Amino acid sequence: MEKRMEKVWAALETAQLDSLWVTTPENVRYLSGFTAPEDARVLLQAGSATLFTDSRYIVQAEEESPLPAFIWRQGDEWKAELKRRLEGVMVGFEASNLTVAALEELKELGGLNWTSSKGTLEAVRRVKTPDEVSKMRRAAQLTDAVLAEVLPMLVPGTCEKDVALELEFRMRRAGADGAAFEIIVASGPRSAMPHGTASSRQLEDGDLVTIDLGAKLEGYHSDMTRAYPVGEVSTELKRLYRAVKEAKRQALESARAGVGCKALDAVARDYLTLEGYGQAFAHSLGHGVGLAVHEAPRLSFRSPDDEVLELGNVVTLEPGVYLPGVGGVRLEDMVLILETGCEVLTGSAEVDL
Amino acid sequence: MEKRMEKVWAALETAQLDSLWVTTPENVRYLSGFTAPEDARVLLQAGSATLFTDSRYIVQAEEESPLPAFIWRQGDEWKAELKRRLEGVMVGFEASNLTVAALEELKELGGLNWTSSKGTLEAVRRVKTPDEVSKMRRAAQLTDAVLAEVLPMLVPGTCEKDVALELEFRMRRAGADGAAFEIIVASGPRSAMPHGTASSRQLEDGDLVTIDLGAKLEGYHSDMTRAYPVGEVSTELKRLYRAVKEAKRQALESARAGVGCKALDAVARDYLTLEGYGQAFAHSLGHGVGLAVHEAPRLSFRSPDDEVLELGNVVTLEPGVYLPGVGGVRLEDMVLILETGCEVLTGSAEVDL
Repeated sequence: MEKRMEKVWAALETAQLDSLWVTTPENVRYLSGFTAPEDARVLLQAGSATLFTDSRYIVQAEEESPLPAFIWRQGDEWKAELKRRLEGVMVGFEASNLTVAALEELKELGGLNWTSSKGTLEAVRRVKTPDEVSKMRRAAQLTDAVLAEVLPMLVPGTCEKDVALELEFRMRRAGADGAAFEIIVASGPRSAMPHGTASSRQLEDGDLVTIDLGAKLEGYHSDMTRAYPVGEVSTELKRLYRAVKEAKRQALESARAGVGCKALDAVARDYLTLEGYGQAFAHSLGHGVGLAVHEAPRLSFRSPDDEVLELGNVVTLEPGVYLPGVGGVRLEDMVLILETGCEVLTGSAEVDL
Repeated sequence: MEKRMEKVWAALETAQLDSLWVTTPENVRYLSGFTAPEDARVLLQAGSATLFTDSRYIVQAEEESPLPAFIWRQGDEWKAELKRRLEGVMVGFEASNLTVAALEELKELGGLNWTSSKGTLEAVRRVKTPDEVSKMRRAAQLTDAVLAEVLPMLVPGTCEKDVALELEFRMRRAGADGAAFEIIVASGPRSAMPHGTASSRQLEDGDLVTIDLGAKLEGYHSDMTRAYPVGEVSTELKRLYRAVKEAKRQALESARAGVGCKALDAVARDYLTLEGYGQAFAHSLGHGVGLAVHEAPRLSFRSPDDEVLELGNVVTLEPGVYLPGVGGVRLEDMVLILETGCEVLTGSAEVDL
């Protein structure tokens, strides 16, 4: 925790901030360990960090957070405290989290110099500590084990929703805080929806089934996608599947510290374009994973040219191709970026088609 | 849907808005029926409503939403379209949802007159239609049935988390989209945490167990809290329980259209204060429920004096008392406000202690 805080202070210095009013739940949890971060704030100021929360959480704050806490009982006490501590000081707010209305409320306090800050702590969170990686590795392993248990359900007549439910229950029973996000089970023509959450559709012979799932464990997430056939699938779907699998293989082979985020996206995109699926790859290659399911760095055709992968990033590589009326395939791994390559954290086997 | 849209246009007129860029997920869903509202927007303009979403949702948007859709493939196409439609027009943004960073991005478009709007559609959503109430009634009934099935688990040795998991799984199997929020199961001393989500603590003889749960059904929520003894509980806890139960009874008796939100909070608060628990009632009496679990109107000691309950509001009444080191009790019903009283939508029986 101390080394983490050193990086935090360095990031504030880089951003030329004396202090920062932290409202993004993932950042609040990162700094405090408090597991109800939606109802808490952290004030970073002059080398000290204070947890702000309300009296519903007196016991919980003490149980969970090592930070000194300011606990308020009445609705406005936190504002008076903020003003007392920060009068005349320049204080950053998190522009990507704070709503316009919430900023107006802060400005009504008067006497404080609020300044917009973007991505200050998110930049610190990009590089994972061994402890963070360990949580994500365990989340991924738990997901692998549960998916293997549920695969026998992928037969004609099974309802997509029942597959999703069984996956989530088993993840929770195995110790996950919950699913990392709403599990996607998209079969047959529904697989053409990249984000088609499970419906009441029943699996049919000839379907290809996309399953996108992850576990949340001690606040950290895993994220993985696989596709499985029900019976024999069409030649067209097989061709699609093989193209996506090869695109992911090429991306995995290229992923290492120092590679550009945009360049890595292009590895998969160029291959799929050659195969005639460029337009059908309707999203970016991947994203960072951690306390948020989607966080920095993004691996996108819109990533800045100078943004590169660093040692300790954990990112997904997830090419996908979607043909309305036909079907779609996405395959996704979550990997830890190393100096000379990457460690694949998600371990579920892929089928050959 | 048409009557709903009439109210929407009237609300825009009241707010003196020509058009509104709707980003709040619940409002997007309210207007469009689209079930991935986090990834969509609605533009209200000159009597027409358009769904904006990206190409991941081509199929889903067509399946779910009756609105005409603008679907973008590249990251910035929606901006060009917005500019094309709104150049020179005054357009509202939702200040309680839009982040400061997102507003900065919109302003970079140039040529549009952005104006802050608060609670415009939320005001329309306060009064539920019979169809909305029907969904919430079904969500509440589903919750009642599932809670009754799980009550036999409340014996010494059962882990809080297992109770929460069983409740959620059964709600989902019974057809709920999911739990309305993270289910609270807080036993023994943990019941002093109003928002203590289920832990690995095992129930013990003499515990009082707070269970706060609800189901999400077709986008709408239910919300209810009950407290159950494990074996014989202490005289102190019994006294606490009876006081909270009586406070809720008095609030239920007073709830009807025309009553002030602050006045209704005071009914429960004054009674608990008389009983010596005023300070320990560490939150407000209740809140509206609908597409959001917490929405307008709030029933709080901080509610404006002139804010009154209306026919068709659905609100919770949930007095609670929390004594660190001792324990706590909260009891909560969700009710539909009528002209002469209220209909209690949550039906699980309460124990006598």
